[in-house]
Amino acid sequence: MIFAETIGIGDELLSGLTLNTNSVFIAQELEALGIMTRWQTTVGDDLDDIRDALDRALSRADVVTLTGGLGPTHDDMTKKALCNYFHVDLKFYPEILEKIKKRFERRGYKLPKINENQAEYPANAELLHNSAGSAQGMAFQVGEKVVYSMPGVPREMRAIMLEEIIPRLKDRTSTRVLRVRVHTTGVPESRLYESIHHIFRDKPDLKVAYLPKHTGVTIRLSLFAEDAKAGRSELDATVNQLRQLLPKAIYGVNEDTLPAVVGELLRQLNAKVTTAESCTGGLIANMLTDVSGSSDYFEAGYVTYANRVKHGVLDVPLEVLESEGAVSEATVKAMLSGALSISGADYAVAVSGIAGPTGGTEDKPVGMVYIGVGRKDDFTVKRFQFGQDRVMNKEMTAMAALNLLRLKLLADATQ
Amino acid sequence: MIFAETIGIGDELLSGLTLNTNSVFIAQELEALGIMTRWQTTVGDDLDDIRDALDRALSRADVVTLTGGLGPTHDDMTKKALCNYFHVDLKFYPEILEKIKKRFERRGYKLPKINENQAEYPANAELLHNSAGSAQGMAFQVGEKVVYSMPGVPREMRAIMLEEIIPRLKDRTSTRVLRVRVHTTGVPESRLYESIHHIFRDKPDLKVAYLPKHTGVTIRLSLFAEDAKAGRSELDATVNQLRQLLPKAIYGVNEDTLPAVVGELLRQLNAKVTTAESCTGGLIANMLTDVSGSSDYFEAGYVTYANRVKHGVLDVPLEVLESEGAVSEATVKAMLSGALSISGADYAVAVSGIAGPTGGTEDKPVGMVYIGVGRKDDFTVKRFQFGQDRVMNKEMTAMAALNLLRLKLLADATQ
Repeated sequence: MIFAETIGIGDELLSGLTLNTNSVFIAQELEALGIMTRWQTTVGDDLDDIRDALDRALSRADVVTLTGGLGPTHDDMTKKALCNYFHVDLKFYPEILEKIKKRFERRGYKLPKINENQAEYPANAELLHNSAGSAQGMAFQVGEKVVYSMPGVPREMRAIMLEEIIPRLKDRTSTRVLRVRVHTTGVPESRLYESIHHIFRDKPDLKVAYLPKHTGVTIRLSLFAEDAKAGRSELDATVNQLRQLLPKAIYGVNEDTLPAVVGELLRQLNAKVTTAESCTGGLIANMLTDVSGSSDYFEAGYVTYANRVKHGVLDVPLEVLESEGAVSEATVKAMLSGALSISGADYAVAVSGIAGPTGGTEDKPVGMVYIGVGRKDDFTVKRFQFGQDRVMNKEMTAMAALNLLRLKLLADATQ
Repeated sequence: MIFAETIGIGDELLSGLTLNTNSVFIAQELEALGIMTRWQTTVGDDLDDIRDALDRALSRADVVTLTGGLGPTHDDMTKKALCNYFHVDLKFYPEILEKIKKRFERRGYKLPKINENQAEYPANAELLHNSAGSAQGMAFQVGEKVVYSMPGVPREMRAIMLEEIIPRLKDRTSTRVLRVRVHTTGVPESRLYESIHHIFRDKPDLKVAYLPKHTGVTIRLSLFAEDAKAGRSELDATVNQLRQLLPKAIYGVNEDTLPAVVGELLRQLNAKVTTAESCTGGLIANMLTDVSGSSDYFEAGYVTYANRVKHGVLDVPLEVLESEGAVSEATVKAMLSGALSISGADYAVAVSGIAGPTGGTEDKPVGMVYIGVGRKDDFTVKRFQFGQDRVMNKEMTAMAALNLLRLKLLADATQ
């Protein structure tokens, strides 16, 4: 196994003002080559701290990446630290200075004095071309180990990583890591684990991770494979097994989103959907219309926050609102029925609940929500009990509603 | 100066699948107390690596935080490493087991066996209450130094950090970093900079950062101050200067959100608002209803995606839709007028545009949006040209619409 360490450099990373997305990108790219990032270190623009981190990294990792500290506006601490660590001087590259000058001229600027240091690099560095900026990347061979240094600007780091570093590292490994993310909603992490962990017992080469959010848990499967094709079909088979165990909870894989999956089913059925929302306040319609092309199957949505509007717009009978209350099965059924009839859509989703944090009662506490989906004369209404946080309650309600709709559409599509 | 080191634990952080937002949050909170995070380390769920990182951190930092590795489904590597490092055993807390059991029962679940280890902690740990979950935080005194351990779930980490750790650390420092975030929308970063940077010339102790997003730029002001009161009034004065320079762009500070500011103005005017949305698909209603108590001023919203629905629900004349098109000033005016009359609200917002990525023409390219706000007989409609990305276009449209509404309400409130 080849291990990597990424070192991020910059005071702005430490002060919490910039998220270190570079380390994330590098780790993903390396992992796809079977190189495992085992340590991530972040230090400030401080000579001793950089040198110390580099020393430590070379004592334990095979591949070390440095990002940041190469910009023209700070004092260039990374190059100083590298010179210092390798006991070399800076070397001036006149051809690089020419290139940088041209780059600036093309944009109608004169090269500021401060940028001229971008033509100087530690004498033992192999330079790595930067197609997205003027600061070059650097490679240093240290026995069997290797150090790569890149600018901190994500666009430039990515260019050097993809065009220069990955091709150099590709031949060092034969293992590849294959990945699939399986998205679920409506089942807590511990229950998911209990229903599926047995299938991984005889698959020791498969790594499983549970990534929980309040709107659902993503199950990530990773497979180290020498043979990419065999590995891919092993992963596919596992996803099928999971789908059979969790047909209700799993709505998609990888880039799939629940609204897009729902949209695909509506297209298959050549059907339209409408929304009647109380506590979600437009979130369900908003999620549906995040999908490009959704105007093909979504034409109208109603946000009926007040009882008066539930009655006036959706024709929910006043008697129902008075006797059962707005948060009730009867109201949600009437909302479904009203939305279907005024919109002319084939399917409707309706929700009514107490988003909170205020407005709860003993009978109807904060987080209680009725969710209905249906088509003419075929309504399903379920009661849910979510939590105390308003925005999370809205998001959980919307996901649960779209998932109920998905199951209804799926049943109709496979009939 | 007191130095801190944050250690993030978890294979998912190293594999690049989860961004380490915890370290960012912790660094910001510590900086506000004048404690500088000088190193950030991330290691996997590996006993030796965790112990090694802890040892290293205690050799150089005064305050060490650990996050992650405390979830119920993984083997709990962090607690093992802490026991190992401090040469202590786990201690079982029956009262915590009871609490966790009750927490599960309240949600209608039985506590899974796998969660029972959340009642065990290293014997020398001082437990820190977690108001957002069942895994407790831990504090360890090591001579003058201190180690805090928290779960990796951001919501739980934040609760422990804010409620338990910050109060404990407050007394250790006298310097404070005072901060204010000033939120703007609708003006690009470079234009903001040009209009305001002159006021910072004579304030060398004030650090200014521009944090741009597609929905607006936040200007962050930081001030190191020994005297918190004097510092606070210097900051307040600067915010007032900014508000005078940018009255249209600045909508709030710190935790203010644009929908909440709009809601406050509606309350002041004792007025109600309604929404008529085409390209935003419910997003504006959704943002308004993210604010607790919004049912006081928001009763009804209409998502009229199809022309048929703009006519049927909002009474937009068919002639207007045919001659001017759905994306036009005339249509948006008619949408405002229809929404006001059917909802009975005092104010309305209406939008119609090409969200993209498809549907653009030469005359009406992707990203073109008409936004209208108004009350009876007093409509303002403006045309905007946003970008190519569908979801970003929706978000920019919603922010621009709410900001136009804010300015209208403000004018009416100060008349």
